[in-house]
Amino acid sequence: MENKIILSEKEMPQAWYNVLPDLPKPLPPVLNPATKKPVTPEDLLPIFPMSLIQQEFSPERWIEIPDDIRKVYALYRPTPLRRARNLEKAIGTKARIYFKDESVSPPGSHKPNTAIAQAYYNKIEGVKRLTTETGAGQWGSALAFGCKMFGLECLIFMVKISYQQKPYRRLLAQTWGATMYPSPSDKTEFGRKVLAEDPDCLGSLGIAISEAIEVAAKNEDTKYSLGSVLNHVLLHQTIVGLETKKQLEIIGEEPDVLVGCVGGGSNFGGFFLPFVPDKLKGKNIKILAVEPTACPTLTKGLYKYDFGDTACTTPLLKMFTLGHDFIPPGIHAGGLRYHGDAPLLCHLVNLGIVEAEAFHQTECFESAILFAQTEGFLPAPETAHAIRGVIKEAENAPEGKVIVYNHSGHGLFDLSAYEAYFKGNLKDYEYPEEKIKESLEKLPDIE
Amino acid sequence: MENKIILSEKEMPQAWYNVLPDLPKPLPPVLNPATKKPVTPEDLLPIFPMSLIQQEFSPERWIEIPDDIRKVYALYRPTPLRRARNLEKAIGTKARIYFKDESVSPPGSHKPNTAIAQAYYNKIEGVKRLTTETGAGQWGSALAFGCKMFGLECLIFMVKISYQQKPYRRLLAQTWGATMYPSPSDKTEFGRKVLAEDPDCLGSLGIAISEAIEVAAKNEDTKYSLGSVLNHVLLHQTIVGLETKKQLEIIGEEPDVLVGCVGGGSNFGGFFLPFVPDKLKGKNIKILAVEPTACPTLTKGLYKYDFGDTACTTPLLKMFTLGHDFIPPGIHAGGLRYHGDAPLLCHLVNLGIVEAEAFHQTECFESAILFAQTEGFLPAPETAHAIRGVIKEAENAPEGKVIVYNHSGHGLFDLSAYEAYFKGNLKDYEYPEEKIKESLEKLPDIE
Repeated sequence: MENKIILSEKEMPQAWYNVLPDLPKPLPPVLNPATKKPVTPEDLLPIFPMSLIQQEFSPERWIEIPDDIRKVYALYRPTPLRRARNLEKAIGTKARIYFKDESVSPPGSHKPNTAIAQAYYNKIEGVKRLTTETGAGQWGSALAFGCKMFGLECLIFMVKISYQQKPYRRLLAQTWGATMYPSPSDKTEFGRKVLAEDPDCLGSLGIAISEAIEVAAKNEDTKYSLGSVLNHVLLHQTIVGLETKKQLEIIGEEPDVLVGCVGGGSNFGGFFLPFVPDKLKGKNIKILAVEPTACPTLTKGLYKYDFGDTACTTPLLKMFTLGHDFIPPGIHAGGLRYHGDAPLLCHLVNLGIVEAEAFHQTECFESAILFAQTEGFLPAPETAHAIRGVIKEAENAPEGKVIVYNHSGHGLFDLSAYEAYFKGNLKDYEYPEEKIKESLEKLPDIE
Repeated sequence: MENKIILSEKEMPQAWYNVLPDLPKPLPPVLNPATKKPVTPEDLLPIFPMSLIQQEFSPERWIEIPDDIRKVYALYRPTPLRRARNLEKAIGTKARIYFKDESVSPPGSHKPNTAIAQAYYNKIEGVKRLTTETGAGQWGSALAFGCKMFGLECLIFMVKISYQQKPYRRLLAQTWGATMYPSPSDKTEFGRKVLAEDPDCLGSLGIAISEAIEVAAKNEDTKYSLGSVLNHVLLHQTIVGLETKKQLEIIGEEPDVLVGCVGGGSNFGGFFLPFVPDKLKGKNIKILAVEPTACPTLTKGLYKYDFGDTACTTPLLKMFTLGHDFIPPGIHAGGLRYHGDAPLLCHLVNLGIVEAEAFHQTECFESAILFAQTEGFLPAPETAHAIRGVIKEAENAPEGKVIVYNHSGHGLFDLSAYEAYFKGNLKDYEYPEEKIKESLEKLPDIE
């Protein structure tokens, strides 16, 4: 029996799967904060191209993947589904563990699945440049790659402290031709305002979002791109779950548990959404979202309308939220530090279709190191959360239980976090109850 | 037509290919520096296990790969052969370019192909611990991975300046459980001697080799492991070329040119050696070794007996050499900074079967960036040299010329070198003629 189940390029899915028409209850609409009414496509046109806006609301179950996107996907897709036999042995489980390896892409994560698609649709609508924000640089480097593949310019506002302290993903994005500004920058009105108040400001994701959106809104030839949360982002990521389904079918396996880590929800959403129809038809599949105890959106948040960003500039999203001004403690899984989650994912959690569990970061690093010492590959700290969840599911599992998780990225740019772990400098953060309570009190008043 | 040619695990080669019995002239023997007579297996037993010594001299054409090694190989092997269509378009060539992607292994290079094998053979002979030296950490991290897979301890002497300045590969090796000492260290007699003379010594590969060998020679349960140069290392790497042959056969291609970068010769040797019998039978294959102008061993060295290390502790190897005390300028392709080359490779260069060409580092970085911007993946600076050679071969190529190269590793740990390139801080070093001349005058006097 092979360790890797590999599809040929011919077997790569021809269409993305859109769960919207299959939902047992419709997804609550995104609201315009001024009118409190559902946003219209026209509201979004200043910052997104029409084809992506249409995907955001599409009633079609299958959305064809254009050939030009499939060609770029083919640089690294289909990705392998791997059996983690050595890990199984090390934990002495009777379960069979598989992981979908999205770390094999050029930027090292699942992020290019949507970056490539977004770059393509912007390109065909005549857009010349995309802007975005990035924290540690996973999303920024992926968008730089996507833009380079279609000859678009890419302008990235990177949180200043990360720009200074984490140069590697920034350099990777620059190698793919992106322009990077540390945020707050003097390139935008909002950035200049922030700098006028605090010239030493080290930035935040919220500030960087505002700068990126400002540039898109003010320039005809420029649009904005988001790496998670929105429906069309999760849609593009469904190629992950669709491939996984095919790969499991080839070896005659049916998943009992699907696990993924959740920050904004795009890697996990893309992974499990194609299995939702099976579950709705009665298949007994546990779908488990894993999040950090330090940012327990799904396990401790409220299911309410809230802003997607700290500066309250986005439309209102119905989601589990810890409050838009909740700033999570500085855990190393930077990609999981988001106060909300994708509305689609939250809706499915609310309907009881998806479960969630939170873990501390040190136990996640322990699991990641066990993984690296058995399966070889070094996981990203975000991915480590999924692995922690998998190991817990595998302990005391009955014979033949099938656990599959999404291996969202590698940890080769996160070795300083591993160093902190080895030096005993990694702190666990208790559930920040008081801070969350305060933040939740400031939620907009909408039911 | 697919971009990737992928073999199943069942199609992974069952045996390594040993070129020794197929050589048109026998390989000049390795000499004991004291007696000037060929070394015997017994000479080598204090530092290597018998099974590897036997492989070093084996007259067998095929050496079976044990199942336990194949199982670990299967974590990342067979590796893909990829068609570089986007690169072809960008340079406007009529040639077809393929690359064998060895960057997909957990340590990110071809190195584990021999690290795994060496760890296995030491393990079955009862060895408890392996020692080695490492510069930037490619080889050290690969051996750490190999040792972890078979439960061996791994002790690595890392050149002190790299230990301090290049922590990432060191941290990767530590994640796989290796013990790392900055060299010169106070753990060996030789290290203490060096430190007594110069407490601030930043180390060199030569010093680190001496420390690693000393520990192996003085401890019953410990052996030494080398990551390149020797026959058995190139033997283990032939899995690369054997897979490449199968993959080319599947798509009905015959290579016109095989290209690889050369430091000690292991990635390139493993890649081209399986094609040598075809060339000897009359197939018109150009086999091109690419090296840096700053360390032009094959293009400017003498084919003479010399020591493998700076401290003159190894047996004498007949090879192209720049002299054992030639210290190359500090180019970023650290893995190509070796004064000699594998005797097997040198023998084939001397027989006219392999050609060599040298390139400057900035033109190699230029090629690497073109590659990253078209094919997505970021190459190691070493691999960049192969790519430079490929592009030159592809320019003005006739219709349908097939160029295949070994993509020996990724550059994700080398982004500071890319940064230096972008900042214009990358220096080209002219052929250091005077230094080489001086160094060559000190060669041992053996014909």
